[in-house]
Amino acid sequence: MAFPLNRRQLLGAGLAAAIPSAHAFIPVKVPQKWDETVDVLCVGTGFSGLAAAIEAHNAGASVLVIDKMALPGGNSILAAGGFAAPGNDMQKKAGIKDSPELLLADMLRAGGHLNHVECAKVVAYGAYDTYRWATDYLGVKWDRLGFQGGHSVARSCSFMNGTGADIIGPMLTKLSTLKVPVRLRTKLLNFVTDDNGAVIGVEVRANYQFPKEETGETKFIRVKRGVVLATGGFSQNVQMRTMHDPRLTAALDSTNSPAATGEGLQAAQRVGAGTCLMDWIQLGPWTSPDEKGFGVCPKFVEASVGYGLMIDPKTGKRFINETGNRKVRADAILAIGHPAIILISETNMKKHVPMSTVKAGLDNGSIKRFASLEELAQSYGIDPKLLKESVDRWNDAIAKKTDPDFKAKIFDDTEANEGTFFACRLWPRVHYCMGGLTINAKAEVIDTDFNILPGLFAAGEVCGGVHGMVRLGTVSIADCIVYGRVAGKAAANRKA
Amino acid sequence: MAFPLNRRQLLGAGLAAAIPSAHAFIPVKVPQKWDETVDVLCVGTGFSGLAAAIEAHNAGASVLVIDKMALPGGNSILAAGGFAAPGNDMQKKAGIKDSPELLLADMLRAGGHLNHVECAKVVAYGAYDTYRWATDYLGVKWDRLGFQGGHSVARSCSFMNGTGADIIGPMLTKLSTLKVPVRLRTKLLNFVTDDNGAVIGVEVRANYQFPKEETGETKFIRVKRGVVLATGGFSQNVQMRTMHDPRLTAALDSTNSPAATGEGLQAAQRVGAGTCLMDWIQLGPWTSPDEKGFGVCPKFVEASVGYGLMIDPKTGKRFINETGNRKVRADAILAIGHPAIILISETNMKKHVPMSTVKAGLDNGSIKRFASLEELAQSYGIDPKLLKESVDRWNDAIAKKTDPDFKAKIFDDTEANEGTFFACRLWPRVHYCMGGLTINAKAEVIDTDFNILPGLFAAGEVCGGVHGMVRLGTVSIADCIVYGRVAGKAAANRKA
Repeated sequence: MAFPLNRRQLLGAGLAAAIPSAHAFIPVKVPQKWDETVDVLCVGTGFSGLAAAIEAHNAGASVLVIDKMALPGGNSILAAGGFAAPGNDMQKKAGIKDSPELLLADMLRAGGHLNHVECAKVVAYGAYDTYRWATDYLGVKWDRLGFQGGHSVARSCSFMNGTGADIIGPMLTKLSTLKVPVRLRTKLLNFVTDDNGAVIGVEVRANYQFPKEETGETKFIRVKRGVVLATGGFSQNVQMRTMHDPRLTAALDSTNSPAATGEGLQAAQRVGAGTCLMDWIQLGPWTSPDEKGFGVCPKFVEASVGYGLMIDPKTGKRFINETGNRKVRADAILAIGHPAIILISETNMKKHVPMSTVKAGLDNGSIKRFASLEELAQSYGIDPKLLKESVDRWNDAIAKKTDPDFKAKIFDDTEANEGTFFACRLWPRVHYCMGGLTINAKAEVIDTDFNILPGLFAAGEVCGGVHGMVRLGTVSIADCIVYGRVAGKAAANRKA
Repeated sequence: MAFPLNRRQLLGAGLAAAIPSAHAFIPVKVPQKWDETVDVLCVGTGFSGLAAAIEAHNAGASVLVIDKMALPGGNSILAAGGFAAPGNDMQKKAGIKDSPELLLADMLRAGGHLNHVECAKVVAYGAYDTYRWATDYLGVKWDRLGFQGGHSVARSCSFMNGTGADIIGPMLTKLSTLKVPVRLRTKLLNFVTDDNGAVIGVEVRANYQFPKEETGETKFIRVKRGVVLATGGFSQNVQMRTMHDPRLTAALDSTNSPAATGEGLQAAQRVGAGTCLMDWIQLGPWTSPDEKGFGVCPKFVEASVGYGLMIDPKTGKRFINETGNRKVRADAILAIGHPAIILISETNMKKHVPMSTVKAGLDNGSIKRFASLEELAQSYGIDPKLLKESVDRWNDAIAKKTDPDFKAKIFDDTEANEGTFFACRLWPRVHYCMGGLTINAKAEVIDTDFNILPGLFAAGEVCGGVHGMVRLGTVSIADCIVYGRVAGKAAANRKA
């Protein structure tokens, strides 16, 4: 990616990319013969799809799980945060008082009250029970209690080995024990509906090799009770994301699995599913263009804010509140149109940033060490005089414990930034889709006329509404597993 | 409406209201016999629909215009602002330099760069030509040049008699001259599509009596070239707006025509049309719960900001930058959860607010006069001591020409607020839908798979994308007429 980006790169080629090919909105005909029949089909092997499969099986349904990828786990397996569970054992041990009401209030505040309250309640009030289920029934082990920005209390149970595999693994083991088949390389193409518009099956591509669209063979699976769609977000679909936020062109990478392409959502739309909050797509402001995926810079950045400062290399000046929320910071970096620089003195760094993080960044080249501010300025092409002025002004703010320019939070133990510096470049990545299919408290999908779409259930990031405009860290895992369980039970209990 | 609102009223009953009735997503069958055949059908008699009809006729098509209401003009006839036309005659006379590029830049800045640039360009570059067309071909007369917030220059041509009827009238006259029928009380129910998913006609309810859904008879109109959907926004549809912004419950009125219910948009969705930017719904922060519709308070408010101050009656304190944009102010009032009070001294009022406005407000009871601040405090139930402190603090800010609390703009000629006061209560109303159907530069509707939906065109507020997250005043009229003309020509020229 070359910077500065031109206007076209920044402002979106979304619509220009619309291909005037054949209009695809033609209902799929009911096949003469189905290749297979199940009670409940779960599409996707992330947290939601697997949780739904376990619950659907336990409610007495015959269940099949499919996933288009060659490996299970979807984008969930990349999750790094933890599980927001009010009332969890570690909170009790630490004497931290928490409640579903408090989690709900946090979600609504972060969500700008754009949350579908009915859905947010399902997650807030279901989180503890599902934490117990994960702990006691699946045998998930937790590492420690973490505090995440925007939450009122420390309530996030982090993974024993640091990733979502710590939950996906036990879920797959449980499904294996229950003899529920998980069929990979099987891609959902279309829903099949009856004369009343109800979902009665799916068209899939078996033996599909992602991302080769022409691979595999078409098969039809009859679904007697319900389909649970759990195909995740669309962060990796540039055309879809630019339609709703034209700034999010191919100039931005995504932290997500390459599988997060949104075709499941589109298949649902083709049979009438409604969507909501599609315009709210979360960017991570803390990713570096100098490493791939999520990387180590986010940890470096979140540990540095309130101590170091963020600079626009073009002007040599600060341009945003470094302790502002994800959205505020990401929007500001996009607005300047090129990567920002975050810098922190060695003194502050050593006290507040884990050395393992700094070492990993130095090793992969995303974090750099500079013997002096002048050297840093030269390396990033910043006017050294202007940079010096900005750092002096920030150090002055630190001394006074107040930032007159952007009202950033300055922590009490912050020291003046001077001497040796550590720094990295920052360019946002697409991280999470707050919008998606409209569902109700029972995980039933709502159509564009606001009626229930019979036979279709959805859970997890493919749905919109739970998080409003901003999702809090570690609430997506609660969302995915709670709603996956709701959807699996509801699908199994549906009378077709 | 009783204040304070309860949690449920504020946070949305959107999903709760979803009716679990029959799923309506079943394609309408092609009728055995069509009742009527036209080349181009225009749905809606606002600026877009009528402009489309004129251009479709002039391109050689047989045209029919339908509208569900008993009177023509839709929501357009209520428009009060003007027409943003860069390079217009009044600008030339006044020596004001302007350009499409400058209008586009203003639109993108206000739109937070969430605009579909391709569509915004159609409006910015088409505005002058369409202003000429309205002036020279339709004979529209303009009053004077106006400056609107967010624009770089004065470029808005205001209506001779103050409303959109000044354009709707000449359009209807032109259609009458051209012998293009405008059929009222005819409501679009469904699009009829062929085996390829192309729109080939519509199902309507003839002799429909708004809002009685069961009135009238079903008829089918075959459309040989294209349908232009110009049915406006959905500000009056509480269920639809709460789906995308759950704060906008029935606790909020709308400034719009009661006809702005969004069923045209939903009919398009039922045949696959995609939507974009649906979550961006503009509130007017300047409406009063003490009068209906748009009212006179907006003018009072916009003339008072920068002089008087806005107060939360519960705390007696200011709570937001009074000169902030519409969104900032409306969001802040919604967040406090009850009407705000704006107050201004008689001295400031007399210098800056038109007396006709104040008189109209005093007459309808929305604006009140108080001999003293104490009297004002008592009337609105504000703690008089806290209110006095707030006014003193604001007067101090006026003296220093800087607002330390909210950085509101303070105009140079502002005087201390004391003595006799004028005030009104403020509660936002839903004003404009920035989101809607996804279209391209040719006004073709794009489906949820990002293909062109053959036979369907759309223009005006039923579409999304042109305005990004915030629409500038007087640009909607440019949008509606420019895109109406584009859609009418494109539909007429389509080879079915």
